[in-house]
Amino acid sequence: MSNETKRPLLLTMGDACGIGPEIAAAAWLGTAEREDLCLVGDVGVLRRALAQRGLSLPLARLGDLAELGRLPPNCLPVWQPDGLPADLLDCPQGRIDARAGRAATLCIEAAVAAIRAGAAAGLVTAPLHKEALHAAGVGYPGHTEMLQALAAAADGALPPVRMMLANEELRVVLVTIHVALREAIELLDIERVLQTIRISDAALRRFGLAAPRLAVAGLNPHAGEGGLFGREEIEIIAPAIESARAEGIEASGPYAPDTIFMRARKGEFDLVVAMTHDHGLIPVKYLGVEEGVNVTLGLPFVRTSPDHGTAFDIAGRGIADPSSMRAAIRMARRLLG
Amino acid sequence: MSNETKRPLLLTMGDACGIGPEIAAAAWLGTAEREDLCLVGDVGVLRRALAQRGLSLPLARLGDLAELGRLPPNCLPVWQPDGLPADLLDCPQGRIDARAGRAATLCIEAAVAAIRAGAAAGLVTAPLHKEALHAAGVGYPGHTEMLQALAAAADGALPPVRMMLANEELRVVLVTIHVALREAIELLDIERVLQTIRISDAALRRFGLAAPRLAVAGLNPHAGEGGLFGREEIEIIAPAIESARAEGIEASGPYAPDTIFMRARKGEFDLVVAMTHDHGLIPVKYLGVEEGVNVTLGLPFVRTSPDHGTAFDIAGRGIADPSSMRAAIRMARRLLG
Repeated sequence: MSNETKRPLLLTMGDACGIGPEIAAAAWLGTAEREDLCLVGDVGVLRRALAQRGLSLPLARLGDLAELGRLPPNCLPVWQPDGLPADLLDCPQGRIDARAGRAATLCIEAAVAAIRAGAAAGLVTAPLHKEALHAAGVGYPGHTEMLQALAAAADGALPPVRMMLANEELRVVLVTIHVALREAIELLDIERVLQTIRISDAALRRFGLAAPRLAVAGLNPHAGEGGLFGREEIEIIAPAIESARAEGIEASGPYAPDTIFMRARKGEFDLVVAMTHDHGLIPVKYLGVEEGVNVTLGLPFVRTSPDHGTAFDIAGRGIADPSSMRAAIRMARRLLG
Repeated sequence: MSNETKRPLLLTMGDACGIGPEIAAAAWLGTAEREDLCLVGDVGVLRRALAQRGLSLPLARLGDLAELGRLPPNCLPVWQPDGLPADLLDCPQGRIDARAGRAATLCIEAAVAAIRAGAAAGLVTAPLHKEALHAAGVGYPGHTEMLQALAAAADGALPPVRMMLANEELRVVLVTIHVALREAIELLDIERVLQTIRISDAALRRFGLAAPRLAVAGLNPHAGEGGLFGREEIEIIAPAIESARAEGIEASGPYAPDTIFMRARKGEFDLVVAMTHDHGLIPVKYLGVEEGVNVTLGLPFVRTSPDHGTAFDIAGRGIADPSSMRAAIRMARRLLG
């Protein structure tokens, strides 16, 4: 791996009051080949994170991402965007703070700007806290919506994005996410399901699978039992699958939600498209796998993140597990090819 | 275990064209202490099942359940209800047949009548096929509804029943089952959730737990995130939990559906109450555990069954796995105390 040929993969520190800075630093240290990794965050906060973890590593503040290749080894590279609040270290760890929300946002904006300018390859985001964003007056509930806005086309059109959750056993892409279940059902239509299938197929091809086998789960018990328990499978999901197949995508279903994840886990499919947040996330999380990764599909760049939150209850104690963050780095690299 | 003191536990053969007769016979043979087990089915069909499995056991036809204690050991005891179709062996295995549907129904009716008359202790049912029931003109979609009707009070009132799925890792009770997801949401009300909690608590106490810890899952993503993603948690589920707690039941929640099953699996709770069929069954089935058991709670007698169907694709080949049927027998015994 040569520093000259690889653009940096950026790790944003997330909410400064949570475990983000700590797991970003620990994941950097725990990744064997890390010459292309660069943290985006506040130097003081990241220095504190190293100390709280008992690490006596030096930290190098980069003036420019291009300096990354010229650093001495075993020196944590940090690119600090302009304009971060000067008193970030005053924010109590484990608490919601508007300053931390603002800093997290500035780091993400700077990282995306660098990627769009060709100075970086992709993005792995440590967790932020939606209430801190709200306190900072940031109008997005989370990373996904913020990144979607930052990736908007010149005419303001938002790219259609989908959330993929993956661990060593299962990959799931969600048609609907953070809405009431009633509303999720209302949101289902052929175009939304078809678009999810297309985005999933494209992601897995990029991931290296030549002909991804996509299973599409139904919405209703037993996938509607031929219309007896609901008609969404007949009127929406099956037509979407048919259209995808006509485009050459190896999609099949709709399958009964209660057994399709088990079948995919056993290797019958490469990915499951799930209609609702919890149909998809219950199986991904069931084994308590530490290495779950969240991938935002549909953006014009690679973005992954760990599948956990800011863990305010253990922030600052130096004990947070960086496994999921490390897995997110591995996933981003694989997607970057 | 003395034959004199134990009333029989009845194993109905299920649909004669599926794997039911085979797994009932194999589970009987695979159960170490089986003096109290008695099959309810067609002697000819069960003799064929033994032959197809390569077993040269003798079969004893009982005129009356009371004869069970007087049989020689290692002799498959079969109680054949009156009126079974004479040509059951003519029904092709692996096919829907009205005669098989009628025979399965007669076996269940006879078994329940014996239990209600005090001649048997409980019921373990091998799978039947709902289309065969339909072809036979039977007005119930499955065992649960049929048993509920057979257990009706003198005034015709149906007992409130709930489906519990259990394996070595997880126990789940469902508030709603075989209805469209839209309709499941409409069916939720405080009384239905509270009744499910009560039935679950009573079942686990009967099962031997002194103070069962019940987790109640929410309906919406993140259990509604304080009303942001739906109000069922606030208006229905939380008040039901509060009422249950006022009755001395150790229920808590509502919890986010995507993590509560993982928490219960790790031992934090004894049972999860799930609002929908698939929220509950996705985790129960995810590991592909062979020993899943279905228990109908709320009936005036013990009834368990394997958590799989008739498996027409392998019927008659002598290869069906009786593990789940055996687990259903163990569960019934534990519930009988």
